[in-house]
Parts: sequence; structure tokens; C-alpha cells
Amino acid sequence: MLILPEALIADLVTPDAAMEAVADCFRAMSDGKARNFPVVREALGEGRQYGFKSGLDLAGAQMGVKAGGYFPGNAAKGIINHQSSVFLFDPETGRPVAMVGGNLLTALRTAAASALSIDRLARDDARVLGIVGAGHQAAFQLRAAARVRRFERVIGWNYHPEMLPQLAAVAAELGLPFEAVDLPGMRQADVIVTITSSPAASLMADHVAPGTHLACMGTDTKGKQEVETALLAQTRLFTDEVAQSVTIGEAQHAVAAGLVSAGAITPLGDVLTGRHPGRKSAKEITLFDGTGVGLQDIAVAARAVAAAQARGLGIEVAV
Amino acid sequence: MLILPEALIADLVTPDAAMEAVADCFRAMSDGKARNFPVVREALGEGRQYGFKSGLDLAGAQMGVKAGGYFPGNAAKGIINHQSSVFLFDPETGRPVAMVGGNLLTALRTAAASALSIDRLARDDARVLGIVGAGHQAAFQLRAAARVRRFERVIGWNYHPEMLPQLAAVAAELGLPFEAVDLPGMRQADVIVTITSSPAASLMADHVAPGTHLACMGTDTKGKQEVETALLAQTRLFTDEVAQSVTIGEAQHAVAAGLVSAGAITPLGDVLTGRHPGRKSAKEITLFDGTGVGLQDIAVAARAVAAAQARGLGIEVAV
Repeated sequence: MLILPEALIADLVTPDAAMEAVADCFRAMSDGKARNFPVVREALGEGRQYGFKSGLDLAGAQMGVKAGGYFPGNAAKGIINHQSSVFLFDPETGRPVAMVGGNLLTALRTAAASALSIDRLARDDARVLGIVGAGHQAAFQLRAAARVRRFERVIGWNYHPEMLPQLAAVAAELGLPFEAVDLPGMRQADVIVTITSSPAASLMADHVAPGTHLACMGTDTKGKQEVETALLAQTRLFTDEVAQSVTIGEAQHAVAAGLVSAGAITPLGDVLTGRHPGRKSAKEITLFDGTGVGLQDIAVAARAVAAAQARGLGIEVAV
Repeated sequence: MLILPEALIADLVTPDAAMEAVADCFRAMSDGKARNFPVVREALGEGRQYGFKSGLDLAGAQMGVKAGGYFPGNAAKGIINHQSSVFLFDPETGRPVAMVGGNLLTALRTAAASALSIDRLARDDARVLGIVGAGHQAAFQLRAAARVRRFERVIGWNYHPEMLPQLAAVAAELGLPFEAVDLPGMRQADVIVTITSSPAASLMADHVAPGTHLACMGTDTKGKQEVETALLAQTRLFTDEVAQSVTIGEAQHAVAAGLVSAGAITPLGDVLTGRHPGRKSAKEITLFDGTGVGLQDIAVAARAVAAAQARGLGIEVAV
């Protein structure tokens, strides 16, 4: 099997390759050729979370699992808090094929999913990008969003405003003016990406203007919430996977409150394959509930493996 | 991290070490210091099964997942049908610690669990060992059982009787006479190990004599069954993990039929820690429902890693 350490990944998977890989896997899901297995996610105590996302893609002949989690004590030890690895197996024989460092891959596939949603669901004339959240992942979301629309400026809000200059620096890199706003100020945005780990909604319905596209990327477990529950009942809803959206995604609260049913949520793959038209008017609000599926991790890891094999990189181990 | 290929395992983990490791993890489960995460098990089509068993052992400071399954097309390709790997992670940081070939480990930990149940639940004067099943795993069960009681003979039954000579050869290795019997002939046995992949019960209540200990080791998924449902209502029930026993273990059918409740099933760890006395009379039938838990895999893999580190074996990879 091939081992691809974390340090190799930046050189092996471009943001464009990640977007192609995620689009391929969303299409395979829509075509019924790929499916995610149930998510295992467990609290370990002291704020630590660990779990497994896995799936099978018959279209891409890939099977695998991402083992990963959040370890808040790591930063003090000089290693990053989010830790994950992706393991790929041959779906015909079950033999291990590769182990791929999963930290950068997770950031890239999460950014790719929100950018895909913006590409297919935001208005073509979207010019103002709003970002709610300013942590490590927010920079990836901003860079990926800038690849799919010609934004003219970026506005940002974060619970800890002292972190916003990091986001402003990324906007500057992209040649975009940046402005810190309060939450009602998000009404200026044509596209809003939420990328927080909040246990309660920050963004309320009246902070969002008609015609906006929202990509809610932070809620990936029970108990997290980024936007007001009532807002979901006023929007056209999309997701990566409906089963995850209604249980661990942003839609969990609206479904629990009886405001939204699973049948009202469309997989983004159905838009990519043309089964669903996507946005239906310039006035409606679209919302993509990005929960993060195992197949995304498997798809970007498989890209890393293919690139490494083509260039003779990585460590081959006989197992 | 340390990579331990399958070929190294036979030299790293003895049956005794596997029994100690499994006993340690059953005790840690009983003490509330270790727990298994939910099992993922998926049919992939064409008879293939794949899934993940995982858990956290705070007593042993181990966390991990076994990725494994059954691939019936493998034999024709010259590789074994059961394929699995165990991945260990540091529970403090989430960093990968080791990847360990899981095929022999699975056989050893399954045999160790049934031997532990015999050691703690069979009558001391047990002399006749019955084996229902004669596949690859049956030989491991026979060898492990022979370590914990002074058996004088072995009787065997298999759906395909032409496979019984393989089992007879293992008995001969152990210096034990072997006899093929029909299922009612199992009434001669003091201990019966069932190790089949049957979808329907073979062993009926009237095939089992009073005072017998049964170790039912084959049922690890919904829809499998080795012994008659009614038999479970007549026995004192033990298991590795109650949650798995009532959903994917041998007890699933008796629970579904309302004959047995989860509260009537005792974790074997409670016997090992003295919380439960185990067998209460020479006449009662005891039954151990061995479903196979992720913590067993993690425990034996950790033994392999410790042995390899002590001897400088394995492949160290910087990830």
C-alpha cells in the first residue's frame, strides 16, 4: 500500500482537483453509484471528538474511511487540533490501498463543496461575499469561493472579532477589499458562507437579503447550529447528503421543529447531474447544508494517490 | 507511525497474549473504562461485506478502528476472503500510532474470547468438546479451547461433512481423539463451540445436555443464527457486549421474539471482575454470545505493537 504523509498533500491536490473530485462524487451519489456508510462520531471527554466517515463509490471504484477528530489539547503541544487520516481499500478484495494524511484534504474538500454550491446556486451577478467565522477553515472557504464568482468585496463577522484581520489578509491576497460588519450587515452579501463551530445560531433570518445563497459549512454534529431555524423554512434547501443533513447537519433543528421535512432537501449532486434545476428565481434564498460526507474524503484522497503514483511520490509498504 | 504487515503477526502475538489482551479489555469494559463505538457493517453486493469496529480504552490508553470484511471472490485470486486491518490512534492527540495486519489477529481474538468464556463458565470437569463448524476459524477455536480445560476427546459436526477431516487433524495435533457426530450426538459434549456463518439455527435445544457451556461465536451480523431461539430462554446468557448481542449477535432472535431481554445478558467482563459469579450450578446451561467487539481488535493489535517495538520489528513511517 502507498503511504502519503500529510506534508506531501499540498503538492498533490490543487483546489481545482478537489472541486473536480467532490463534484464527481456528488454526481456518483446522485446516480446511485456511490453511498456513504453511517457516521460514527463520539465524544471522548475533555472536549475531544473522534469518529469515522466511510463510503463506497462504485463509479470511481473507491472504498475507504476517514478516521478523524478534534483534540483541543493539541495546540499546546504544537500540533493542530483537527487530526485525520484517510484509508483507502480495494472494493473488490478489501485489501488496503493507501493511507493519506487527511488534515489538508479535509480543508480542501470542505471548501470545494461550498464553492460547488456557490457555483451552481448563487446568482451569476453575486458581487459581495459574506463570511461568518474567521478560524483556520474560513480562509479555505474564502479562497475557494473566489474561484467561482467575480466578487468585488468581502464582509466578515466573527464571534471573536480579533480574529478577523486573518481573514482580511486572505481577502487582500485575492485583491479584494475586506470590511468587518455586524450580523445585520450581512444583508449586503449576495453569498454568505458560515463556517463556525457554534452551539447556537448566529445568523438570523433578518440578516439575510432576498436572492442570497448561503453555504452553511460548520454544522457537522448533533447540537451545533449556525443559522436561525426559521430561516431554513424560508429557503430552498440543498445538501451533500440528506440523511446527514437531517441528523447532524444544519437542517437537524428545523426538522426536529417540524418546519422542514427530509423530502424538501435536494442533494447538490441532483443539481450537478441536471435532475434538479437548482435556483428557481433571482429573489429566492438558497441554502446549502454542507455536512461533509465520507465519499468527499475518499474522492480527494484518491486524487492524491493518483497524483503521487504518476510522480513516484509516497512510501510504498508491503502489507 | 509503525506499520506491522500481516506476515509479522504470527511471530508477535501468541494465543496466551491474545487471551490476556482480551481479558484486559473485557475487564476495562466492565469497569466502565472502555467502550465500543457503534458498528458499521455494510453489504457491498456480490456477497461482499465491509465495515468498521472501533472503540476507546482509557484503561489501556488505546483508541482504534478495525476496517475489515468478507470478499468471497478473493479465494479465486489466491488471497484470503476475510481481509482486515487495525489502525491505532493516540487517544490524547488523535495522531495515528500504528497500522496492524488484522487477519490473524481477528482469528486469535475470536478464539481467545471463546476460550475465556470456557475458562470462566464451563464446568471444571468438562471432558468432551463439541465443535459445530469446520471452517478456517474452527481450528483456532479448538486450539484455544484445549488450553483452558483438560478435554479427553473432540466431537464435530459441519454442514459440509467433507471438511471435518481438517478439524480432526487439529485434534490429532493436540493429542485428542476426534469423532464426527450428527447434531443430536452433541448431547455428549460438556462444552460446545459453534463457529459457522449460518443464516438459520443448526443446534437445537434437545441437542444440548444439562450442564453444558456453549460458546456461540459465528453470529456477528443481522440475519445469522447458529442455535435454536428457544434454547436461549433456557440458558444463563453471557456476552462480550450486550448492545451488540441483542442487535447483531446470537441473542438478536430471542430478543426479537420477546423470549429474552437485554437485562438478562451478563457481560463476560463482569465475571472476570467478580461482579457476577458466572455459572451457578453444575446442571445449568451457560451460553456465551461472542459477537466480536472493536476493543478486542484494538487490544490484540496493541500487544502486537508493544512486542514489535520491544524487538525493533515493523516499518516506521513519518506521517
